[in-house]
Amino acid sequence: MNENNLGLILDYNYMMADYIGGKGITAQEIESLKEKIRLSHNNMMIKKTNGMMDFRRLPFEQMDLVSEIKEYVNAVKNDIEAFVVLGIGGSALGPIAVQQALNHPYYNELTKEKRNGYPRLYVLDNVDPERISGFLDVVDIEKCLFNVVSKSGSTSETMSQFMILEKMLEEKVGSDKIRGNIVFTTDREKGNLVEIAKKKGYRSFVIPSGVGGRYSELSSVGLLAAAMCGIDIEELLKGAAYMDELCSREDVYQNPAYMFATLHFIAMNQGRNMSVMMPYADSLKYMSDWYAQLWAESIGKKYDLEGKVVHAGQTPVKALGVTDQHSQLQLYSEGPDDKVIITLGVKEYKKELMIPAVYEEIKNISFLGGHTQNELIHIEQASTEYALMRSSKMNMAILFPRVNAFTIGEFIQMMEIATGFMGELMNINAFDQPGVEESKNATYAMFNKPGYESKRREMEEAKQKEERFIIR
Amino acid sequence: MNENNLGLILDYNYMMADYIGGKGITAQEIESLKEKIRLSHNNMMIKKTNGMMDFRRLPFEQMDLVSEIKEYVNAVKNDIEAFVVLGIGGSALGPIAVQQALNHPYYNELTKEKRNGYPRLYVLDNVDPERISGFLDVVDIEKCLFNVVSKSGSTSETMSQFMILEKMLEEKVGSDKIRGNIVFTTDREKGNLVEIAKKKGYRSFVIPSGVGGRYSELSSVGLLAAAMCGIDIEELLKGAAYMDELCSREDVYQNPAYMFATLHFIAMNQGRNMSVMMPYADSLKYMSDWYAQLWAESIGKKYDLEGKVVHAGQTPVKALGVTDQHSQLQLYSEGPDDKVIITLGVKEYKKELMIPAVYEEIKNISFLGGHTQNELIHIEQASTEYALMRSSKMNMAILFPRVNAFTIGEFIQMMEIATGFMGELMNINAFDQPGVEESKNATYAMFNKPGYESKRREMEEAKQKEERFIIR
Repeated sequence: MNENNLGLILDYNYMMADYIGGKGITAQEIESLKEKIRLSHNNMMIKKTNGMMDFRRLPFEQMDLVSEIKEYVNAVKNDIEAFVVLGIGGSALGPIAVQQALNHPYYNELTKEKRNGYPRLYVLDNVDPERISGFLDVVDIEKCLFNVVSKSGSTSETMSQFMILEKMLEEKVGSDKIRGNIVFTTDREKGNLVEIAKKKGYRSFVIPSGVGGRYSELSSVGLLAAAMCGIDIEELLKGAAYMDELCSREDVYQNPAYMFATLHFIAMNQGRNMSVMMPYADSLKYMSDWYAQLWAESIGKKYDLEGKVVHAGQTPVKALGVTDQHSQLQLYSEGPDDKVIITLGVKEYKKELMIPAVYEEIKNISFLGGHTQNELIHIEQASTEYALMRSSKMNMAILFPRVNAFTIGEFIQMMEIATGFMGELMNINAFDQPGVEESKNATYAMFNKPGYESKRREMEEAKQKEERFIIR
Repeated sequence: MNENNLGLILDYNYMMADYIGGKGITAQEIESLKEKIRLSHNNMMIKKTNGMMDFRRLPFEQMDLVSEIKEYVNAVKNDIEAFVVLGIGGSALGPIAVQQALNHPYYNELTKEKRNGYPRLYVLDNVDPERISGFLDVVDIEKCLFNVVSKSGSTSETMSQFMILEKMLEEKVGSDKIRGNIVFTTDREKGNLVEIAKKKGYRSFVIPSGVGGRYSELSSVGLLAAAMCGIDIEELLKGAAYMDELCSREDVYQNPAYMFATLHFIAMNQGRNMSVMMPYADSLKYMSDWYAQLWAESIGKKYDLEGKVVHAGQTPVKALGVTDQHSQLQLYSEGPDDKVIITLGVKEYKKELMIPAVYEEIKNISFLGGHTQNELIHIEQASTEYALMRSSKMNMAILFPRVNAFTIGEFIQMMEIATGFMGELMNINAFDQPGVEESKNATYAMFNKPGYESKRREMEEAKQKEERFIIR
């Protein structure tokens, strides 16, 4: 409970058998996990203090970084038109989600004055050649500040973009002035970007070594982009700190992150292999994308901590209310009972919009007149939750009193702790991603990168595709 | 096979047991469905000729509409700055997907000259009050043409937007001139918009009565928005016509739509309850959203055609290559074997981008130098497919020789036919959506709409939420 009405609320009524009947979760089921929850909590506390879960320190230990970033932003923002993140995965999803949540929905289309003097934001998180080319059509690269984000400095996608754009800059602004157009976010001591920064004198921000990509939004990775667009990063961290303390409670009934994970754990073990996140707010749309990486990469694992093959995981699905009521709700209501649906609600939107009392003679639209769009979206959310409950489909709601930097900080920290806790309940490592190596190695082999000769041979010797399984 | 190299290619090698082992599909499995496939084909042909699947007539019977649209676009495009679709679900997803596929990736940020004189495009497909307010900050509504798209004219979301914006226009441009700012796309004879159009003299385009929302992109619903942004709608229809003929073949080995559905049918019956669409092209990103509605709403059904409760359905999941390799691939490779992954590939992108041969001393990035981003994205796609195959995860590829209006028309028609065929195989109705009524009725009840008194009573009498299942 908090007095400022700033706390997120987790409402899991419609997960429970009391509402959805035999398929629902019972109070006893949660109780029966008591010992497992206690052990998982102990592990969380151990990891937190032993430097094995450093994302939990981010809200508390970055006062110097905040000052450094603010000083940097103030020094450069007037000279640039666009801040451009070159990053992928955790380096991109967080910055996109926070920007979308906290700034104007058409931010890049506003004048600089309406952006309060802050630059536009672009996040280039793919290697599609049409995207970078298209990007170059709408910006003047001399007025761009490129933020290369990669801990190792060896991410092929990000580094290829950097190689292309640095060359262009050298030709356009010259090697002497280029330092005004490039800033790195990378490791403190290791990796290619550290080396390059030293050699060329580029400014660099540090990603703490114990913080993995998908847990890095509240490190320099996310804070720099956010501050550069005028977002109050101290509030982000304050919200995260507030939630971190709340989610340090052992009592699952008082800990929203633990309860979120516990309910998912029960639902998953009953065969629900999807977790749908469905915000009822355009501003929160990309929080689902961010959550999708966090949940998928953290708990989708072949092995458990004892090395047993488990092929565990639950697939995150992105949806948007009310929009996807006209796309996915048919399936969610009538289809298989194979998912948990999380709605995100907003109590107080930043704007209010009245629907005028017109067309009084047309009964099936006139009932809308005199109400606000705010009421409409609230009622539609409640209706969807009610309809899902009536179809015995598990759903829970996370309610934002308002969407602001504080509550977004809360949400990020809550989801990260929930994910770590889910890893404990499942007895898997929520902090690695060994399964992406196979594809990376195949890429290196096809590029004839030294050291990957045997992978290349394996690929050449593998069964080649057959024409009979191709339709042209 | 086609000579112009314009045909989409379906490559399903990695669905087969020959590659992924025991979990894969065998040639015999497909053979054993022969009789079911024959019957389903017969049903498709009967429905096609009997007016029960009218989306198949769209590519062949709209020459007059095309002329009418082109004439209209030419008459109005110079006077407007933005074309604004007010629509949701099928009225929005198709227009967004086609625009993203065929126009510049930052189309709205280009000057009108670079847009060849065509207006910007906005699609307002939610009732979030922040979205419309934000939209009003970046446009001059006097220079907007609002396209209200709703067959019944009673879609609450769309009609509430219309009510708000029409009032604003009346105040700003006046009732006499407003006809230049509003155009409807609706039914020929029935519904509120027909009535309003008559009364106020608004121009109206017709949605054929036998074409449902998610199958309507190649009707006036999608064609008007596309033509308004300079897209060649005749080519769209030509591509669809070409594919429709190809997909009228009875032989499943020669019919990509039938094969797509058949493979999904087998995979689903083995427990794979997800269909992931993962384009390796930013231009095709929103085709996944469009497919997600088509697949979810069509085959997610409680009852089969005999009225038996089946709770059928497969959940579509949107992903993007290579971006989601850094988000979802860990789960797809190592997690449960519960999905079919469809990659969309592009042979020839519209642009080529060279990665310069720099940093030769840094071995783990220098291997990229001298190659193009086109090669990088191609190789990464192949690597992902290979890695998934090596983890025994089913995946197939649809290859676009190029992304243009012709191939996009092909893709739309292929997916719609595949969806209809999947409905036949599953013995369900792929053309209705009864499951969305519950939520709509709850919304009407909460707004005290006349006729919904008993629903309101039911909701009031339902078990109310308990504080003990809420964490604040």
